[in-house]
Order: sequence, then structure tokens, then C-alpha cells
Amino acid sequence: MSRLRWLTTGESHGPRLVAVVEGIPAGLALLAEHVDEHLARRQRGYGRGGRMKIETDRVELIGGVRNGETLGSPIAMTIVNRDHQSWLDRMGAGPLPVTPEPLTRPRPGHADLAGGLKYDRHDLRDILERASARETAARTAVGAVSRRLLAEIGVRVFAHVVSIGPVDAARLDLPADELEARARASDLACVDPEAEAKMKDAIKEAAHAGDTLGGVFEVIATGVPPGLGAHVQWDRKLDGRLAQALMSIQAIKGVEIGDGWLAARSRGSRVHDAIHYDAGGRRFTRPTNRAGGLEGGITNGESVVCRAAMKPIATLKRALPSVDVGSKESFDAAHERSDICAVAAASIVGEAMVAITLADAVLEKFGGDSVRELRRNVAGYREQIEAF
Amino acid sequence: MSRLRWLTTGESHGPRLVAVVEGIPAGLALLAEHVDEHLARRQRGYGRGGRMKIETDRVELIGGVRNGETLGSPIAMTIVNRDHQSWLDRMGAGPLPVTPEPLTRPRPGHADLAGGLKYDRHDLRDILERASARETAARTAVGAVSRRLLAEIGVRVFAHVVSIGPVDAARLDLPADELEARARASDLACVDPEAEAKMKDAIKEAAHAGDTLGGVFEVIATGVPPGLGAHVQWDRKLDGRLAQALMSIQAIKGVEIGDGWLAARSRGSRVHDAIHYDAGGRRFTRPTNRAGGLEGGITNGESVVCRAAMKPIATLKRALPSVDVGSKESFDAAHERSDICAVAAASIVGEAMVAITLADAVLEKFGGDSVRELRRNVAGYREQIEAF
Amino acid sequence: MSRLRWLTTGESHGPRLVAVVEGIPAGLALLAEHVDEHLARRQRGYGRGGRMKIETDRVELIGGVRNGETLGSPIAMTIVNRDHQSWLDRMGAGPLPVTPEPLTRPRPGHADLAGGLKYDRHDLRDILERASARETAARTAVGAVSRRLLAEIGVRVFAHVVSIGPVDAARLDLPADELEARARASDLACVDPEAEAKMKDAIKEAAHAGDTLGGVFEVIATGVPPGLGAHVQWDRKLDGRLAQALMSIQAIKGVEIGDGWLAARSRGSRVHDAIHYDAGGRRFTRPTNRAGGLEGGITNGESVVCRAAMKPIATLKRALPSVDVGSKESFDAAHERSDICAVAAASIVGEAMVAITLADAVLEKFGGDSVRELRRNVAGYREQIEAF
Amino acid sequence: MSRLRWLTTGESHGPRLVAVVEGIPAGLALLAEHVDEHLARRQRGYGRGGRMKIETDRVELIGGVRNGETLGSPIAMTIVNRDHQSWLDRMGAGPLPVTPEPLTRPRPGHADLAGGLKYDRHDLRDILERASARETAARTAVGAVSRRLLAEIGVRVFAHVVSIGPVDAARLDLPADELEARARASDLACVDPEAEAKMKDAIKEAAHAGDTLGGVFEVIATGVPPGLGAHVQWDRKLDGRLAQALMSIQAIKGVEIGDGWLAARSRGSRVHDAIHYDAGGRRFTRPTNRAGGLEGGITNGESVVCRAAMKPIATLKRALPSVDVGSKESFDAAHERSDICAVAAASIVGEAMVAITLADAVLEKFGGDSVRELRRNVAGYREQIEAF
Repeated sequence: MSRLRWLTTGESHGPRLVAVVEGIPAGLALLAEHVDEHLARRQRGYGRGGRMKIETDRVELIGGVRNGETLGSPIAMTIVNRDHQSWLDRMGAGPLPVTPEPLTRPRPGHADLAGGLKYDRHDLRDILERASARETAARTAVGAVSRRLLAEIGVRVFAHVVSIGPVDAARLDLPADELEARARASDLACVDPEAEAKMKDAIKEAAHAGDTLGGVFEVIATGVPPGLGAHVQWDRKLDGRLAQALMSIQAIKGVEIGDGWLAARSRGSRVHDAIHYDAGGRRFTRPTNRAGGLEGGITNGESVVCRAAMKPIATLKRALPSVDVGSKESFDAAHERSDICAVAAASIVGEAMVAITLADAVLEKFGGDSVRELRRNVAGYREQIEAF
Repeated sequence: MSRLRWLTTGESHGPRLVAVVEGIPAGLALLAEHVDEHLARRQRGYGRGGRMKIETDRVELIGGVRNGETLGSPIAMTIVNRDHQSWLDRMGAGPLPVTPEPLTRPRPGHADLAGGLKYDRHDLRDILERASARETAARTAVGAVSRRLLAEIGVRVFAHVVSIGPVDAARLDLPADELEARARASDLACVDPEAEAKMKDAIKEAAHAGDTLGGVFEVIATGVPPGLGAHVQWDRKLDGRLAQALMSIQAIKGVEIGDGWLAARSRGSRVHDAIHYDAGGRRFTRPTNRAGGLEGGITNGESVVCRAAMKPIATLKRALPSVDVGSKESFDAAHERSDICAVAAASIVGEAMVAITLADAVLEKFGGDSVRELRRNVAGYREQIEAF
Repeated sequence: MSRLRWLTTGESHGPRLVAVVEGIPAGLALLAEHVDEHLARRQRGYGRGGRMKIETDRVELIGGVRNGETLGSPIAMTIVNRDHQSWLDRMGAGPLPVTPEPLTRPRPGHADLAGGLKYDRHDLRDILERASARETAARTAVGAVSRRLLAEIGVRVFAHVVSIGPVDAARLDLPADELEARARASDLACVDPEAEAKMKDAIKEAAHAGDTLGGVFEVIATGVPPGLGAHVQWDRKLDGRLAQALMSIQAIKGVEIGDGWLAARSRGSRVHDAIHYDAGGRRFTRPTNRAGGLEGGITNGESVVCRAAMKPIATLKRALPSVDVGSKESFDAAHERSDICAVAAASIVGEAMVAITLADAVLEKFGGDSVRELRRNVAGYREQIEAF
Repeated sequence: MSRLRWLTTGESHGPRLVAVVEGIPAGLALLAEHVDEHLARRQRGYGRGGRMKIETDRVELIGGVRNGETLGSPIAMTIVNRDHQSWLDRMGAGPLPVTPEPLTRPRPGHADLAGGLKYDRHDLRDILERASARETAARTAVGAVSRRLLAEIGVRVFAHVVSIGPVDAARLDLPADELEARARASDLACVDPEAEAKMKDAIKEAAHAGDTLGGVFEVIATGVPPGLGAHVQWDRKLDGRLAQALMSIQAIKGVEIGDGWLAARSRGSRVHDAIHYDAGGRRFTRPTNRAGGLEGGITNGESVVCRAAMKPIATLKRALPSVDVGSKESFDAAHERSDICAVAAASIVGEAMVAITLADAVLEKFGGDSVRELRRNVAGYREQIEAF
């Protein structure tokens, strides 16, 4: 059903991450810089630990792109894991001279134990290397390609952080451009400078207590044509697909669209967006966007707005009780180095997942094997609905 | 990737709904009663309008089942729409003697307008007939089959309503059996009788005001083996798949797993579930289940717990401003008959969607073309992880 | 990847067959007659046994169609099995009053034994009811819908029989219209009247000997735009998808495209089709079509031509040695009533499978949620390649 | 539905090919040597041109494997294109200093023209780089992984060439081991030494005439358990999936299973395989295997036998008329360097595609996230069918 197929591969301390994405039309301008920009954004953020500073991710385009343009063939991108060199004796693919000491102590809140049981691995490193959020660098790369595609038809995706721990940002009624600019300028991708200061304080306090924090980010897509997704079958509904995309990000435990949980507490007359008609622009408009741009699983022409709730990072200095899978003895899981808060980074991954989902929905609706064909099909549709 | 494929078809006032589900092993005991039980549960609930009372849904098994057992072939189920007879002149498949008056007034909060634009239909009935929540009867049927399968390996799924509008039920620390029994006994699928009374009052008040209410329900699956879902690729993560399944239900605008949004406001030391070992039961246990049974996109052996937020019903007596798609003139969308609150019904659909998602994950992990083979594979795995 | 999803359900002596197809754009004129025409064609043919005469299949459209037009929602079609009434005591879905005598004697050449082992069914009727070629009536219905879609963009699909047993039809160099008309007029879908007479003799002789015959049919699609399918990934290649579609038909054991096996015996200079340019028509042309319209897995603008080889019917009067699965004793499988040759009928199913595959490829390339949108996208592309 | 997902990427003269395969259980012993062995086999063969000699393909395992064992995570493999260095100025992904001279002359029999039209590329190199059979090196790598998996449950896959141009090998009634050994020892993967000599002569003659040759190869899988694939839905039939897998290989134009085309010419009593019972081995057996191991789309316990027909290589010294896509002027496509015959190489790719398809069917039926779990599930099933 999806026209875009994509897979990521690679372990956190393996030689490389690889991202493959297939179904992007030919003729799309695509440079490594387009991807590197977002890889860098994913790595920054107040409250991140040491590793982020060591590595500056750079993508290498090794398939599907020639002379700065896509060819219609599958796009392959790799990102080198710079610290793989120091892990060769433990993470090499070939038989290792000495079998590495197994990691037998599962961390609560991670895939370690559940994955070990599932895949029958007693060295839990075999699980955590892939479960690590390092994988999201590859998603970000696929997202960057999707963003380039969406830009061709006037769709833009950005995210901002709306809360860190108990600190909420104000809901500012600003144009999307301004929100995006502020989020880009902020260490925490937060558009409300006052809240940002408090968020930093909360992170500092958590760090001091050997603890970690989560939070909530919002992803906004502007310029989205009405008619993406479909009401006709459960798995064609775009709201469901966005929910999957966001919930699949490491550490995300909640997703909402538009007013979401607030809508569930309000009366119907306060929730649904009135329909107006703008005769000049020949389009139906809404004075409000409480639906987050989706009705019946279909985009309605307003901005798509989703939020995702991230749990606090599960690797912390404070002890969490756990059990050694070998000896079955209890121990306290405590860790020296860790991020304290990665919500800003996760928001960039959220942008990527929303961009991929929308790009897929665009290609499904409009087809097209070249950017020219896609643009022509979109333009024809836009005329059609203006004359509806 | 999924081993279960299923599709629903049918319009709200067409002759029948059809549900097709493929991939269920042979040898599963399946009677119409198993399905009808849940169809009836979906139809009840305080705050429902008139239609629910007219129709008592009954399934007919027309494929894949013989002598009370599944055959391994695709299962087809139909549900007659009893009021189709009075809609023959407007909803017949063949050419109608008189072209019906087109419905040109889109209702805010519904797929009407977005769908009309997408599919180029000026009679919006062509959209709303399929977008209607009537479709969830077919999902419920597929869910009932999935529940039968899950029962074979000891998995049970039930839901209860945790809030209606602003009224919250208490979080009661009761065994799952007791919660399920209470939910089944309640008009609103609410386990807290005090809250239930307040919820009914809120619904009455909303009805009086010509308004509607949404709410939140929780789905719990018990007996889930660890190891369903996978951390290895974004779309194999079971949390993402559950989020899609729930968010795809009509009117759902938010999904959370375990502590969800609460986790995003708490510190890490308060969020992650410690790991213990029960030497007698030869299994790893958790004193808490804040993760909702999922770590790294994989079930961890605890109950799977998800919540979904439903917006208030979008068809209400109070006027919502809209525009006629033909004349482009404004009008006030107001409706005589409607449900006031359908959260209890939605919770049954939520059960269905979670059951389908889990059944799919079970089949993906364990394979099996007969129930005997599936049970043998599951038993072998359970022994394996006990000896881990 | 596919934009069209379709499933068939139903047992041979169950109440109904159901076909569901999803992804067809809205606004397609579709009547039961469009489907019934091909259902009837599937049932005729020289050499068919008694059952074909009893049943005249008729489709009922029960979803996705209103007032003679598709809605964009999933299309559901059912076909009643008229002899189900006499099978109620053996094929009912609910618990049967008396457990029917199990069928324990697998027929060589059928799914009976392999299916019984796989699904752990000792009553082989549980397998053969679904494995039966009766299922192809439902495929034919989906094919009829696909043909209607293809007709909107000028694509036409027809089949003719090129050999029955050892008797070959002449390869006549006639226009496609003429070939199609002749095939439609022939009892054996054979365009060569002389060969047809010999084929009938061969069938008569086989019948006399208690034996059966297979043969080869060819499916031709005209008006196919260049650019369907793709070279970029193994499973996007249209030749592979056509091969799967045809080989999946009951009793088909071989598939070839264009010159196929002949090409494997010839030199390259005799196999590849020269490229010309028709300046008036602004299109590239080929003086020959040995590639069968496909190069690199992509349609090249010539007619798509495939052939499928059907084995003789496996239910025959002459004894085939087999073993009772209960007693493990040998017996001779011999049958009273059977078709002698069903190649003409299979050719109609072949048309259906090619039509479905092409419709899917069309929707994948051109997108479109309404027929108007699809036609506009195709027209834009046709202009683009004329100006290439 | 498939449990195995795999994609290949990379252009013929790009930096690397990448193959990604997902769904392989953890705990499978996998070394680069396992893959390299088959990469080398793909490169040899009488009648190959110069390039094959330059490059000796070597795989690098960059994901999903650690210390010689799979982890359950996606496996990524890359193969360096050694001559990419000399193509940097034409095949670089980034903007090239000088735009390369476009290739505007499409070769008959290749994807060049159809792909150029589809993807709107006027430099046909953008198409042929991906359409090239170079891609099959990546398929071979995925096949090698699949073979390792199949070996764990006793399934073995090998191929041999049965004809080159008009020269047929004798059908030798030898044990599979002997056939495999002979095929491995032969320059042309031919088990009949006399025919092999004639095939070489035919290739020499074709070369002398500036021409090319195709042929037919057969793939045999031994040790296949009954019950892979399914009769229940068209796209679960294993015969169809094998046909797609083989037909999707570059230059393949025909596929048959078992007796295939011969079956279509024979009477039923000569085609279907009698069923015997081997009380000692507790299994059903067949004195013949004319069905090629597949009945009703399900494996029946006999060896799976398929054949594929390859057209002659389309790049030849002898002129084929074509048209420049820029000027629209005719020219004669003639090429200096080329392979004359690549059927032996294609047979290795055929092995790979059959191995992948079978591995997928195995995982679909048996599930399993570790090799231990898979083996246990298979063993349980084998016991079940012995006791059938």
C-alpha cells in the first residue's frame, strides 16, 4: 500500500548505519548537505551527554543519486560510527579472537531483557546495540530525503518542544515560520524563552539528582494538501499511520493529534472546527485547527499537528533494581555517563517520521516517477479542488 | 511482515458489512456466538442514540469455517444492515431510478469535506457512508476471531472507560479479572461505580445542552508472553503498531502506552520498572508496570496497557457553522438524532484492535498453520525462556 | 507497494464466494453486468463437465458501489454457490448435527495431501474445498473491475488458447481486435478454426480414454502505456509480478513473456526488438514485439504478451494410485464426473490476473483517487513522453 | 505476509552495492566467506566478458552480525564496485564539476528507453546503471544468507544449466548430490559433459558471429518439508512466488515448475504423481516428481524443481537498429565488449532467488526469532506429520 519503502540497519557501535529508501521519484535535487543539516540538529540539545560531542555525523550517499539528483532507484545512505574503531574487538562481524565478556545485566526501561528472551541472546549487548537511539540517525537521514520531496510541493515540517518534565511552554499564537525560527534558535527547540530557561533549570536539577527527564514535542506540517490518507480502511487512515510513526521512536509512550487528550475532556461544540469558504482563495478554511488537520483519517487542508510524549531516559546514575540474567542475582543498575534529557533531539526524529509518513501519503495519492510528473499531478489536483 | 491480513467493507446503509481475515490457523473453535457476543457489547452503552436499539447485529460466517472450526482458509463474515431496506432507493449498487438528492452540507469533525475533495464526490453521502463508525462492527468481528485465537495461548483482552468528559474514574488497584467483570457489568464500561454515576450525569447534561462528550478508555491484555514485537525496525515495534491500531478507530485523537503522558512529566527514577526474578515461577517480574508491558517495542511479560482518547461525537444538536459545497453558502450544521457519548462502545472496538494486533504478533513470532502447531510452538518457547 | 489490495474467500460448496478489492478510484462506472459477462465466459468451454451447466454465476455488489459508480471505498462482491443447499449437512459453518464422513483419500495432483499435512486436517475436504478452481470465479470478478478501470485509459486485455494437449494453433498475424473477436466466438477461445477442430477431437479422444488434457493460453494487453513496472527493485519488476499472477492460477505450471522459451534457443540478433521513431505519432515503435512489451521489467509501449501452460485436470476417470491417509492403504483414485479440459476457462482467469496486475501498476504509477484524477494524470504523462 | 524483507541498492558503477535483509533469526552462523563463495561462483562461467575478470567481489558485513553470528537485527552487506574510482567524474553522487555527456542511444532489449520515458531521464545512463545485471551480486549475497538458514533445517538449493541456445543437456537420472557436484565442477554449470562441449562450441560460434546466446537453467531444492506456501490465497501460493522470484531476474523470460510446458502437452494420466506410503520412514512418497514438488501451491515433500529461460544478452557486436532519443535519428547499436552467454551466472542468481523464497516460506510457517526456536518448531512439525 505504501509507495515508499525504507529500512535502517546497523548497530550502535558497529561500523556504519545504513538507511535505504525506495520509491522517491527521479529528478529530486539531493545533496549530502541536505541530510547532514538534520543529522547535526539531531545531535545538539541542552542536556545531552558526552557521545554527542565526539561524533559529528556525516552521510555518504552511495546509491540512487548522481550529480546531485535522484535517479528513481533506491537511495542508500551510510553514516560511519566513528567510535567503531575502539570497539573492533567486541563488535566485529567476523569471529573475534577472544569472545567478549557478555553483558548480563539488563537495564530497566530498555529492550535488554525482553529482547534477550525473544532472540535467545545471553549477551544482552546483542540486543541493546540495535535498540539504541543511535538508530534514529538513520531515520533522520530518510526524513531529510522526504523533506526534500515535500518541499517540491510546498509542504514543510518542523517540531518544537512543548514541555520538559513538569515545565510547560506557553502556547504562543505565532505564524508557523516564526515558531520554526524560534525552535531552530533554541537549545531545547522551545519557542517560549521563559519556559526554556525553566526547562534548563529542571534539567540541571535532575542531573544533580542523578536523574533524567522526558517531555513532549509537537510536530507541525504546513502546506499539506487536503486528501492525504483515506477513511476507507483502517490502515489507510493517516492519523493511525502518524501515530505508528511517532510511537515507534525510541522512548515515546504517547501520541496525540490536534487537541488530543484535551478534546476527550471537552464538549463537542468546543472541539470541532467550523467550515468557512474563502472565495478569493477558492478554498475551504477553518477558523480553528483543533482537529490537527485530520478528519476521518484524511488531511483537511489545515496544518497537520501531532504531539509525542517521551519518557525520561532509562540510563541513569540513580540506581534501578535489576537482576543478572546469568546468576539471577539482584543488582542496582547505575550508570556513569548518560544524557539527562533528549527531548529536543527526539523532536528532530519526530520531524523525520512525520515527513516520511507524509511523503509516502503524497506518493500514494499522486503517483509520479519523476519530480516533474509529481508536481504536475499535484497541480492538476489543486486546480480540481479549487473548482470543486 | 504481518501474518494476519484483514479488510472490512461495506457502507453504513448498504446491504451488508463484510469482514475478511486471513492467516488464522486451522482447528480453532469458532462459532457465530463468539462474534455476536462482542457485536452486542459494541451496541450497548449509556448515551447512545436510537439506531443502536433498532439493530441487533448478528454475524454470518460464510467462509473459512466448517462444523464450528476454522480451516486455515480466509474467514469471511457478514453483518446485515437491517435498515438497508429503507435505503434501497438511495443506496442501491445498481443504477437508481431517480438520482438521489445530493448531500452537500459537510459536517465539521467528519470526513465529509476532506473525503469529498479527495475522491471528487459532490454528494457527500458517498463519503460518510463509509467513514461512519458503523464500520467498527466489522472490526469487532475480526477482533472476536483474534480473541478466540489468543485464548488458546492464555491471552485475554478487555477494556474499561477511565474518563468521560471531565469525569475521571479512580485508578483502582484490583486484579484484572475483577476489573474486567466490573467493566462488563457497567453501562459505561467503568469499573468505579461512583465515577460512573457522575459520568452519566455529565452525559445527561451534555444531552440537555444539545452537546456531546468524549472520553478515554484503557485496554489491558493479560497473559502476554514476552517477546512479541521487535526492536529491530521501526515498523516491527509493537508499541507503534498498537498506536496505529487504536488511532485508526473513528474519533480517536490520542494514544498512550503505560504511564504515557504522565511518564513525560516524571523523573526517570520514577518511571522505569525494576526487574525482579521469581525463582519459583522461573520468570522475571516487575513490581510496577509503568511501561505498560512494552520495552523497546517488545512485550516484556507484563500486561499490555494502552489508553485511547476519543473526541466528542461530531454530529450534535448545537449548531456548528459550515458551508454548502454546492452553493458555497454558510449554514449551521445541526442534527436531530445522535449519540451523545460512545466511549463505552469505542472501548469494545479498542479491545478488538488490540486483540488483532496481538494475534498478528503472536502468529508472526510463532508461526503455525494449525492451533495444535501454534500451541506447541508457544509451549516450546515458554520452556525456553523459563530456562533462560 | 501495491496500491490495489484484494482477497477472495469462500469454499467451493460453502454458501458464497466473496471478493474484496480495495484501491479502485471513485467515479468508475461499474454494474453487475460488467462482472457477470466474464463470470459467464469463465463457465463455458468445450470439454467442461456437468457442474458448469448447473450454475450460472451472478455477482452481487455489496460494498463500494452506489448508483452504478464506485465510491473509492473497498468493493465487495459475492457469488452464491447454488448447490450449497444440498451441502448444508456437510459444509455448514456451525456445529453439524452429525460429523460428516471424512474424506481421507488424497487425489494426486491436488492440494489434498500437502494441505492436509500443513493444516493438520484429517478430513481432506477441509483443504480441497478452498483449493478448488471454484475460487477463480472470485478472481474473475476482481478482474472484471480491473478491466473497467483499464478501459478508462485505453487498455484492453484478452486471451486465446494456443494449444490443447499436442495440438497447436497457428500463430496468425491478425490485428488484436480480430484475434479477440475470434477468441470470443470460439468454444475453445481459439483463433484458428482448423486447430480448434483438432483440439476438439483431442478432447473427445481423451474423454474416451478416461483421461484429461491441458494446454497453453496467451494473454494480450493492448494500449498499455510505457513505464508501468520498474527496474529498480526485484519485486517492482512487472514481468515478475505477471509471472506470479499467472502461476498462482490453479493448475498452471509455466509462464512465459514474449518469445519466452523460444528466445532462450535463439541468438541475440534474432531476439531483441529494434527501436524506431514515428515522428507523426511522436512515439518510439518496434517492428517486432519479441519482448512481449516488457524490457527491464518495465512496459515499453508495445502490447504485453504472456503465455501460461496448464497441466491436465487432475481428477480423472483413469486410476491414479494413492494412499488413504487414515489406514495408509493404497487405493486407486478414479472419478466419475469431471471436466476433461478447462484451458479455455483458465484463459479467462488469465485475463483477470493480467488485468488486475496491470491495474495495480497503473495506480501505482499514476495515483489518483477519482477516475477523473487518474485520467488527468495519465494524459499529462502521455503528453510528457510525446515531447520526450 | 512475508516475514523476510530485503532490498538491494546501488548502481553498476557507483561506489557500492548494498543488500539489506531483515527477518533472519538470531544465532545463525554467518561469515563473509559464506557469501563470498557464491559471489565468486556468480562471476565465473564460460562466455563471460572482461569485467568479470577485473572484479572479485567481496562482501563486507556491516550490520546484524557479530562475532560470526546473526543478532536478529537487519543484516547489511556491501560489495565495493572496484571500478568506481575510474567513474568518479561521471557517477559521483554530489554535483559533478562537468556535467557528463549524456548517453542518448537506447539499446534494444534493455530497460534504457522504457526507463528513460518512465523516469523522465534524458541521460539513459541514469537508468542502465541500476537495470544492469550487476545488481544480481547483491541478490546473491541475500541468497547466501538464506542458504545458511535453510541448511539449518536440512534444505539445500543448487542449479544446473539444461540448455544453451539450441544445445540441450541430457536429463540424467542421478542423485541430487551428484548433479550438484557436477554442476559445480563445470564451466557452464552443466551436468552432461558431452552437451557442455557442444554448448561451448555454440558460444564460440555465436561470439564469432558477433552474437550472443541464452539458455535454460534448472534450480533444485532438496530436503524441503511438505507444507510451505499455501493454497488459501493467490499470493500465498509458493509456485507463484517462485515464478515471480525467477522472472524478476534480469533477462529471464520464462519460468516453469516440474514438467511445466511438457505437462501442458501430455495427458493427465501421464502427469500426476502417484502417492505411496513409506511405513518405515513414516512419510508419503512419490515414485515420480512431475509436479516439481508443488501441488496446490504447497510443497509436497518432494524436491522443488523450477526452470527459467534466459534470453540472449542484449548487448552485442552485431548491429541492432535504434534511435537517438535526443535527435530522434536512427543508428545501429553495436558494442565492442560484452559477455556472449551468462546462463551459468544466471543460474547462481536463480539459486539465490529460490533460496530466498524458500527461506521466507519457512519463516512464515515456522516463525522463530532464534535458530534454536526455528529448529525446535520445525522438529515438532516433522514429528506431527510423521504421526499424521
